[in-house]
Amino acid sequence: MGVKDSPIGVFDSGIGGLTVMRALIKVLPYESIIYFGDTARVPYGTKSPATIVRFSLESVEFLLERDVKCVVVACNTSSAHALPVLRKYFKVPIIGVIQPGAMAAVKATKNKRVGIIGTQATVRSKAYEEAIKHLDPAVRVVSQSCPLFVPLAEEGMTRGKECESIIQHYCKSLKRSAIDTLILGCTHYPLLAATIQKILGRSIHLIDSGRQTAVDVQGLLMGMDMLCDKRSKPSYRFYVTDENEHFQTLSSRFLGRVVNKVELAKWNR
Amino acid sequence: MGVKDSPIGVFDSGIGGLTVMRALIKVLPYESIIYFGDTARVPYGTKSPATIVRFSLESVEFLLERDVKCVVVACNTSSAHALPVLRKYFKVPIIGVIQPGAMAAVKATKNKRVGIIGTQATVRSKAYEEAIKHLDPAVRVVSQSCPLFVPLAEEGMTRGKECESIIQHYCKSLKRSAIDTLILGCTHYPLLAATIQKILGRSIHLIDSGRQTAVDVQGLLMGMDMLCDKRSKPSYRFYVTDENEHFQTLSSRFLGRVVNKVELAKWNR
Repeated sequence: MGVKDSPIGVFDSGIGGLTVMRALIKVLPYESIIYFGDTARVPYGTKSPATIVRFSLESVEFLLERDVKCVVVACNTSSAHALPVLRKYFKVPIIGVIQPGAMAAVKATKNKRVGIIGTQATVRSKAYEEAIKHLDPAVRVVSQSCPLFVPLAEEGMTRGKECESIIQHYCKSLKRSAIDTLILGCTHYPLLAATIQKILGRSIHLIDSGRQTAVDVQGLLMGMDMLCDKRSKPSYRFYVTDENEHFQTLSSRFLGRVVNKVELAKWNR
Repeated sequence: MGVKDSPIGVFDSGIGGLTVMRALIKVLPYESIIYFGDTARVPYGTKSPATIVRFSLESVEFLLERDVKCVVVACNTSSAHALPVLRKYFKVPIIGVIQPGAMAAVKATKNKRVGIIGTQATVRSKAYEEAIKHLDPAVRVVSQSCPLFVPLAEEGMTRGKECESIIQHYCKSLKRSAIDTLILGCTHYPLLAATIQKILGRSIHLIDSGRQTAVDVQGLLMGMDMLCDKRSKPSYRFYVTDENEHFQTLSSRFLGRVVNKVELAKWNR
C-alpha cells in the first residue's frame, strides 16, 4: 500500500473531534480515516500543559503505529499546547486546528475585532491570539473560556432557555467588545452555533476551525502529492481508550452518521 | 509509628472529594489525612465500569504505598463501581460513600420515596438503589443523572438564574415523583445544595453522603481501635496526578480552607 492509500489519522481528546472528521469527509470523500479519541482521559481542557502534552504524544503515537500518512490534531486544547512538541517528535505532517481557525478569522473580520471561545487550557495558552497577531498585529482579540459548553453539547441541550442563559452568561464580555467575528475554538461548539448566533446576533461571523482545517488538510495532501487517487469507498475506523455507549450515542450528532463499530485501544495508560 | 498514628487515605477522581475530607476533618479533627485526586483523568462519571475500576485500583494503590490505615473512596462513581474489587484486592478497611448515603436516606424518608442525583456512571450502576432496597425493600427510588452540576459547581455558578434553570431542568422527574428525601450522590453537589433546596422546596430532606461517611469512618476506626489518640495538630497532604492551579483555586470552596501545597503524584499512567 502506497502512502497515497494510507489513512488520515484524526486525534481528539474524546468525541468532539468527530465534528472535524465530518468536515474532512465532506472535503475529502475518498480518504480513509482512523479516528482516535482518548475517551478514558477526556477532557484535556481543564488540565495542565504538561499533562496535555504527555497525553497527546501517547495518542499520536498510537495513530502512527497504524501507518497514517498525516495527523490532524482535532482537539483545540491539544493543538494549542502540544503541536510544537508533536512536530518535534514525529516526522509525518501534523496539522492542528488553531492556525486554520486563526487564518479564517483574520480573513473574515472587517472591524479587526475577533472573539475566541474555548476551554480554559486553550484560552490560557493564548495560541489563537498569537496566531492571529502573527497574521495581523492590528487585530484585537477577546477570549472567553466556556466550561459549560461541552457538557451542554453532550447533553443535547443545544437550544432552549437553559442553553441560552448559559450562553448569555459567557458571552457578556464578547458582546461588549463589539467583535464581528467569533472563533468556535473547541470541537464541541459547532453544535451550539445556532444558539450562539441567536444570542450574539446574525451579524457576527462564526468560524468553525474544524471546517477550515479540513480545507487545509486537502491543500497539504495535494501539495505533498499524497491525496488518495482511488475513487473507491474509503474506510473509517474508530479507536477509543474508554469503551462506553456514549461514543456511539453521540456519534450521529457529532459526525452526522451512526458509528456502529468502535474499537478499544489496548494500551496501559 | 503505630497504626493509630497513620493517616486516613482519601481517594477521589479529582477535587470533589475535598467536600468529604472537609466532613472528615470536622468529625475527626485529630486524624491526619492524605488526599489523592486523580485530576489527570477526572472525571470518572462519564466513563465505563472497566475504566473506573482500573483507575480506582491504581489510585488506591498509591495511597496504600503511603501507609494509610484505611481508605475512604470519596468519589461516588468509584464507590458505585469499584468498591467490591478494591475490597477484594486490598486488605485495609475501605469505605465508600454509597452505603452511608443510602442508610441516611432510608432513615430520613417518611413517605418512603427517595431521589438520587449523581453522575451518569453512578446512576447507571444502580448502586444507591440496591443499597436502599437492601435496607428497606419498600422504599421507592427515582434516579437522575445531572452532568451539568459538576461544571456548575466548579465554575462557582451555584446560585442565580443559570444555575436555577439547569437545576429545574434536571429535577422535573424528581418533583413529579413526590420524593421527600434526596441523596446528593456526587461530591460536588453539596455546593449546589442551597439552590437545589430552593427549587425542590424546603420540605425535601437533602442527604450529603460525604457527611454521613465521615461519621461511619469514625465508627469504623473506633470499632477497630485505630483512632488516633494523640491530641496534636494533624497533618494533611494532597497529591494529584495533574498539577494545575484549579485545585488550589477551588480548594477554599470545596474544603473550606486554602490548600497551599499540592504534590504531583509521580507515576506514569
